[in-house]
Amino acid sequence: MTTSNTATGDAGPAVREELARLRDSIDNIDAAVVHMLAERFKCTQQVGRLKAEHQLPPADPDREARQIARLRALAENAKLDPAFAEKFLNFIIAEVIHHHERIAEDTVNGATPSANRTTTSSPGE
Amino acid sequence: MTTSNTATGDAGPAVREELARLRDSIDNIDAAVVHMLAERFKCTQQVGRLKAEHQLPPADPDREARQIARLRALAENAKLDPAFAEKFLNFIIAEVIHHHERIAEDTVNGATPSANRTTTSSPGE
Repeated sequence: MTTSNTATGDAGPAVREELARLRDSIDNIDAAVVHMLAERFKCTQQVGRLKAEHQLPPADPDREARQIARLRALAENAKLDPAFAEKFLNFIIAEVIHHHERIAEDTVNGATPSANRTTTSSPGE
Repeated sequence: MTTSNTATGDAGPAVREELARLRDSIDNIDAAVVHMLAERFKCTQQVGRLKAEHQLPPADPDREARQIARLRALAENAKLDPAFAEKFLNFIIAEVIHHHERIAEDTVNGATPSANRTTTSSPGE
């Protein structure tokens, strides 16, 4: 919701207003996405705990393949590049793997995984 | 909304149900995020066109610095790793730069930028 008139040179007020309006929308979208991603990591953490408690296999390649296919289809409908949607899922998966690595270190060191860390589970979930 | 019981081994039905419930939430969140990102790219494309039409400078480092600081603060409130939120913005910026590169190629070749491509603008916007 922060707006700025910097780097708008000598454009007229109507143009500056339009730029501020678009930037406000971008900021709103970014805030929404950050909050959604926070919820998503809460879910993957719960999945990780569930799998660890019940000795379920950490990875599920079938599930991951279905996720990729679904996201690509959704992206296409939303007129978003499907390749970007797949890259986005891989980006999230990389973060979940990063969480897993920290958990693995904790386990080796005998520490209890914290609430902010997930046990090993299929990275994309 | 797709659920799966694969890779749930011999866990009881209650565990499988809980896993399916969590995966449904993850799928819903992913769908929401993909649609939000589609809207975000529509905004950056409009910003690109606006800047090109009014000869505004493409980059705005101040705006980008404010975006990063804001997203990190939002992430912290949502109990999301602020470093991840910054990485996320950089990931999006990389995609916008990728769009810009395609536009630059179009411009060199004398083609008209398509509706799916943005003219040069501050990558994060």
